Amino acid sequence: MLSKRIQTALAGSSAIRAMFVEGKELAAKVGEENVFDFSLGNPATPAPESLKQAMKDLLDDMDPLVLHGYMSNAGYEDVRAAIAENLNSRFGTDFTWNNIVMTVGAAGGINIVFKTILDPGDEVIVFAPFFGEYKSYAANFDAAVVTVAPDYKTFQPDLDAFAASFTEKTKAVIVNTPNNPTGVIYSDETMTKIGEILRSKEEEYQKEIYLISDEPYRELIYDGAEENFLTKYYHNTIVGYSFSKSLSLPGERIGYIAVPNEVTDAEQMLAGIEVANRTLGFVNAPSLIQKAAAACVNEKTNLEFYDKNRIDLYEGLKKLGFTCIKPQGAFYLWLKSPVEDEAQFVAAAKKYNLILVKGSAFGCSGYVRLAYCISNDKINRSLDAFAKLANEYGLGV
Amino acid sequence: MLSKRIQTALAGSSAIRAMFVEGKELAAKVGEENVFDFSLGNPATPAPESLKQAMKDLLDDMDPLVLHGYMSNAGYEDVRAAIAENLNSRFGTDFTWNNIVMTVGAAGGINIVFKTILDPGDEVIVFAPFFGEYKSYAANFDAAVVTVAPDYKTFQPDLDAFAASFTEKTKAVIVNTPNNPTGVIYSDETMTKIGEILRSKEEEYQKEIYLISDEPYRELIYDGAEENFLTKYYHNTIVGYSFSKSLSLPGERIGYIAVPNEVTDAEQMLAGIEVANRTLGFVNAPSLIQKAAAACVNEKTNLEFYDKNRIDLYEGLKKLGFTCIKPQGAFYLWLKSPVEDEAQFVAAAKKYNLILVKGSAFGCSGYVRLAYCISNDKINRSLDAFAKLANEYGLGV
Repeated sequence: MLSKRIQTALAGSSAIRAMFVEGKELAAKVGEENVFDFSLGNPATPAPESLKQAMKDLLDDMDPLVLHGYMSNAGYEDVRAAIAENLNSRFGTDFTWNNIVMTVGAAGGINIVFKTILDPGDEVIVFAPFFGEYKSYAANFDAAVVTVAPDYKTFQPDLDAFAASFTEKTKAVIVNTPNNPTGVIYSDETMTKIGEILRSKEEEYQKEIYLISDEPYRELIYDGAEENFLTKYYHNTIVGYSFSKSLSLPGERIGYIAVPNEVTDAEQMLAGIEVANRTLGFVNAPSLIQKAAAACVNEKTNLEFYDKNRIDLYEGLKKLGFTCIKPQGAFYLWLKSPVEDEAQFVAAAKKYNLILVKGSAFGCSGYVRLAYCISNDKINRSLDAFAKLANEYGLGV
Repeated sequence: MLSKRIQTALAGSSAIRAMFVEGKELAAKVGEENVFDFSLGNPATPAPESLKQAMKDLLDDMDPLVLHGYMSNAGYEDVRAAIAENLNSRFGTDFTWNNIVMTVGAAGGINIVFKTILDPGDEVIVFAPFFGEYKSYAANFDAAVVTVAPDYKTFQPDLDAFAASFTEKTKAVIVNTPNNPTGVIYSDETMTKIGEILRSKEEEYQKEIYLISDEPYRELIYDGAEENFLTKYYHNTIVGYSFSKSLSLPGERIGYIAVPNEVTDAEQMLAGIEVANRTLGFVNAPSLIQKAAAACVNEKTNLEFYDKNRIDLYEGLKKLGFTCIKPQGAFYLWLKSPVEDEAQFVAAAKKYNLILVKGSAFGCSGYVRLAYCISNDKINRSLDAFAKLANEYGLGV
């Protein structure tokens, strides 16, 4: 006798995880080396050597009662200070340790922010295509997501549609740039306009509306793009970050929430987020990895590795006649299905051992997502399989 | 504009954490060595040397993409298998890896179980005094706790009151033995009767009612008591465990849920718990510490350390004329306030730099909790302060 909510969740279980399982099953049949599994956003380049060394040093040098013990529910103060200083030096912010709450990944972070701001019946605006879990996170607090369709040429948000999507129940807007699943970076112009619209809507509805910036891919950007930090566009912006991608440790569950002083009642907000961290059962972010992440806060992932995959895959697919959005960041490629029902396309791809995820899992049918965080050898070998798939749909020359 | 739930939570914030903060403030004034802080259940004996070695070996020997990467949301299969085998060898259970879900501590574990079984309006029976967070955890899913008063002589549950507390809305019962805050171990007789009552209530209401056993103190038992595992008393028992106390790593957030095959629709239950782990934002238990805990699954904490504190404190307080429940497990001592309003007693104790937590934080006023996980030197020095406190209340000879 499971709860109704979990029965619903089980019925509509994650399409990404489902494809990941299909990939594993296929690998058991035809050999792991013959499956081109583009399903999961699991970093493919190892954590930096300095992370390993930092962890070993912490284990050798620190009092284990402190290293593995309880700290403030918001995290170690020195860790929060290191992150605040790092952000200040990169983005000209004026954070202190007190603006930062360490979290169990970005997923934990978004949930404690949602718990802190959402009442039942509230609405959260999301830009399609979007990370499907946002829906579950809002549902955890009896709130609903309202989806805004993209500009299908650029996959920037359609800002007229955005402005029209507000109601009296709107409490928050989530942006995720560089974007999962499209790889698109929201332009400075887009973000400036989003800020303007939010200010006018706060005025119109006479209440706070929060912009939540989900930034796990902040540093994963190509072609000389500049890292962006969204608090400058709008006063009520709350940032959620994860070290999963920058330090290649998604299994360790470490991230943070940053609440600038410009946020209305910032102090109360931070107190609420800290309480939510405790009462939702996270209690605090894992302790050793907090310290290790702070020690490696200036490390970068192997961007060249992903960039090579990006170019090889994008150019290869274009040559085969597929229509793709050119990725600017993250490690995802967004491809237009040659047929309207992309589930049919995903099934056809599987015949060639290509594991893709359907766009409807991200609130945007007619497209598929490819996570190109696999070996470059596989990327290039996959193009033979894609050639057969293209042939089946009469693409190319 | 915080959510109403968080506004309520902030207003009634944790009394334990509040006393912990008072202790810190006092330490800043009079010196840390002069404050006898009995507020927090933070292990006082360091993590075993083998844990440090296991972590360093894992860092040296394992592929970092696996060690720090995503795994199944339920945890690494080899970790779950190691825990299943350990439980089987100690308690005669017949678990496989599939019965175990790795969790972000016991707090994370209880929340994902609650999410899996509780619908809005459901009731969870708790035995007073109880860990106050249970109330927040139930409220996360719009369920309420129903409190059953204890037998005040033994602090075993009052089983007649228990039997009378069921309604059509009862979905679960939580037990926590060895108990926080009393240190009492529920006897075999108590547990047998709880099982009988649960079976008859399932029959009466014609539905599943779950017994959730919160077992972070399972191995912290004294006077030759035998470790107990509660699945043998009742078929619909779900066990939540934390390594926080046995391996002294409460900051690392690592535990597990065990669902025996005897649980109704066990497979569905496990699938639901895994989905809840993902959608509540935990995603999975932290990865490195999963592997390290599995490597140390046979380690025990320094029981002698706590036992000496227990004896010294209990005998010392009795001699001073205080009325205490003799602790049988965990690292808490439950003391009867000499005045009905224990908040007044807690305030008086603070004058002598004694930091205690009022029983009403555990749903049982008129008592206070002492967490004796501090140095033995402090335990013995605290008795001088308690002597002055006893004198103030005219206790002893």
